[in-house]
Amino acid sequence: MITRQDCLALDASDPLAPLREQFALPAGTIYLDGNSLGVLPRATPQRVAHMVQQEWGNDLIESWNKAGWIDLPLRIGDKIARLVGADPGELAATDSTSVNLFKVLTAALAIAKADAPERLVILSERGNFPTDLYIAEALARERGCELVLVDEPGEIDRQLAGGHVAVLMLTQVNYRSGRLHDMAAVTRAAHRHGTLVVWDLAHSAGALPVSLKADGADFAVGCGYKYLNGGPGAPAFVWVHPRHAERFWQPLAGWMGHAAPFEFTPNYRPAAGISRYLCGTPPLLSMAALECGVDSVLATEPLGGMAALRRKSLALTDLFIALVEERAAGHGLEVITPREHHLRGSQVALSHPAGAYAIVQALIARGVVGDFRAPDVLRFGFTPLYLRHVDVWDAVEHLQQVMVNAEWHDVRFHRKAAVT
Amino acid sequence: MITRQDCLALDASDPLAPLREQFALPAGTIYLDGNSLGVLPRATPQRVAHMVQQEWGNDLIESWNKAGWIDLPLRIGDKIARLVGADPGELAATDSTSVNLFKVLTAALAIAKADAPERLVILSERGNFPTDLYIAEALARERGCELVLVDEPGEIDRQLAGGHVAVLMLTQVNYRSGRLHDMAAVTRAAHRHGTLVVWDLAHSAGALPVSLKADGADFAVGCGYKYLNGGPGAPAFVWVHPRHAERFWQPLAGWMGHAAPFEFTPNYRPAAGISRYLCGTPPLLSMAALECGVDSVLATEPLGGMAALRRKSLALTDLFIALVEERAAGHGLEVITPREHHLRGSQVALSHPAGAYAIVQALIARGVVGDFRAPDVLRFGFTPLYLRHVDVWDAVEHLQQVMVNAEWHDVRFHRKAAVT
Repeated sequence: MITRQDCLALDASDPLAPLREQFALPAGTIYLDGNSLGVLPRATPQRVAHMVQQEWGNDLIESWNKAGWIDLPLRIGDKIARLVGADPGELAATDSTSVNLFKVLTAALAIAKADAPERLVILSERGNFPTDLYIAEALARERGCELVLVDEPGEIDRQLAGGHVAVLMLTQVNYRSGRLHDMAAVTRAAHRHGTLVVWDLAHSAGALPVSLKADGADFAVGCGYKYLNGGPGAPAFVWVHPRHAERFWQPLAGWMGHAAPFEFTPNYRPAAGISRYLCGTPPLLSMAALECGVDSVLATEPLGGMAALRRKSLALTDLFIALVEERAAGHGLEVITPREHHLRGSQVALSHPAGAYAIVQALIARGVVGDFRAPDVLRFGFTPLYLRHVDVWDAVEHLQQVMVNAEWHDVRFHRKAAVT
Repeated sequence: MITRQDCLALDASDPLAPLREQFALPAGTIYLDGNSLGVLPRATPQRVAHMVQQEWGNDLIESWNKAGWIDLPLRIGDKIARLVGADPGELAATDSTSVNLFKVLTAALAIAKADAPERLVILSERGNFPTDLYIAEALARERGCELVLVDEPGEIDRQLAGGHVAVLMLTQVNYRSGRLHDMAAVTRAAHRHGTLVVWDLAHSAGALPVSLKADGADFAVGCGYKYLNGGPGAPAFVWVHPRHAERFWQPLAGWMGHAAPFEFTPNYRPAAGISRYLCGTPPLLSMAALECGVDSVLATEPLGGMAALRRKSLALTDLFIALVEERAAGHGLEVITPREHHLRGSQVALSHPAGAYAIVQALIARGVVGDFRAPDVLRFGFTPLYLRHVDVWDAVEHLQQVMVNAEWHDVRFHRKAAVT
């Protein structure tokens, strides 16, 4: 039996415990939804207010130089690069994940076509995040390609072996199940078969160590508002391996990606490297908040970095799984996230045949915030930057009460919300 | 002779004068650069702080429903629609101008191709804003189209008459010269020749009356951070005439444009109307500031609306032109913005053969902020929401001093800045 006291002891000896002080956590809430929207860093309100009142309000256009607005996409990009195993100057913070995916997928298809014109397949998983599939579907329709979706990770190899796959597009950690791909192994397999790989790091950047360069990845995109704590709708990021970065003019050829953006020349001349993946003027207030969020993750560096964060993440998810099985067993809940560490991201998903939605609502009423994913999944994200072992214990205590008291039978938890 | 006293009298009887109180204007500055970055509305810091601390910090993901985050692109869109002669539900605030231009230009080309497959030309002006030309150039290259650029507005009709133009893409007010196109006449001429028209309203939305529906326009995009005062890098907007809105699945098919974005289905099904022109999650902090900016323009409605704003805008630019000619003549400055009201936006551009850059710098040193556009243009934007007649008088007084004292010969004003 694991006791609450055991969890308090684990927290007392947790080397990452001080990181929690960086965040303004709402009182009375155990927040297990940082994989949907990360929490607010304490530094953010002041930083955003400074940009609004001083940089914009007082200095106005002068801030493009004086406050370094023009450098923000690459300055923040360099910081994110440290979290995902990329080098300085290779990664840019800009636009949304969907827009960035469009850029890199277009580039990947063009490069694949130049090298092997007979390949006309984009391969992905049916369970990949929908927006990724939508972008790929639209692009495939337009380019006369085929989007092939597999149901099981094991089918990926078989498809690759066919030699017809131009681009493999995967999200490293599945948004629903929390299942983690082995980036190095999958990338190696793809390259062996002449296929380029686009990785979506939405649920891995800031959540676990990522080694884009070391693993040989080709392209990557990721999200700013989940584990990077960048705030609602924070700009996303885009990375292109230097071996590909200058092979293609991505089609969203806006002024920020021009080699000389302030020369106002009528003809497009793409900037060197990742800068050509910039497009229009970035939303600077949201960029300021993103930088604070990224800084909150970088604060881990002197404490052991992403490896230490990963150890704590696995400890938290191990604990959650163990406690759910110990204390909430026999109520129809099933752990669907893999038990193996090498297959697990920083979340745990449970399934319940009839009650998933209502159980999530009953938990929220108790101050435990997870989310529901249709048709039967309860999803809990564990952000080791601000979650304690005792939070996990308390969350499962609430879950047990919801199940034992059948609170989720309460009709008010069964209304279907417009947004879940 | 116009005196400073005359200008003070004009301000005293100006029905729009109270609107200036909405803004936090920096002390000691006459800001004639609202066509680059609009000033800070007083309401914005508190609105942004509320979103940061309450909606994000405290309510977290609940705010998608509770605070209406999910509705922001269309809610703000409906407000902008009132300023540009569109109907509710037709316009969305989202992404950057460049990205939105990519969407509508792709759609316009696809619709043109369906109706007249032999037409392969995108027509624009060489003097159009560079990012517009870059997006069109990239798209033309990809689609096997040709981007044809004319040097004079008069050449547009001749090109249209050739019957080969699929899409005419114009910025209504030229960013450099301030020259204004007659949207109704140009659109009529284009339609007579079977050509669709994409309008960029970057320098007209919030600056002068625009009648997209009444003028029969096909597509439009516009900027949030110039005359709409939405803050640095504020999201842009996109409008598609209802007759075209559902004819095409624009290629940036992200989850926000899905018919049922929270069903997480693997297949894309575009939303009805303008919603399908949404893509990824919008940058919400920047959206909040944009809404305050749009509200600052809508505050004109009870005071005569855009027609009243236009009257004041023309009075200010008329006054500037008259004073420049009266007080700064004989120093090589030439007014290059058209004198005719129907050909003028809300700015005045001057040229100076050798000193344009240095004169702008000398003026900035005196607290008069305009901007320089290579090679020889001094650009002054007049935002009637917050500029007074006396500001115009004082600005020209400074300009006269700079010219009479040859202050711009000062070597420190000749350094070439990285960003101008």
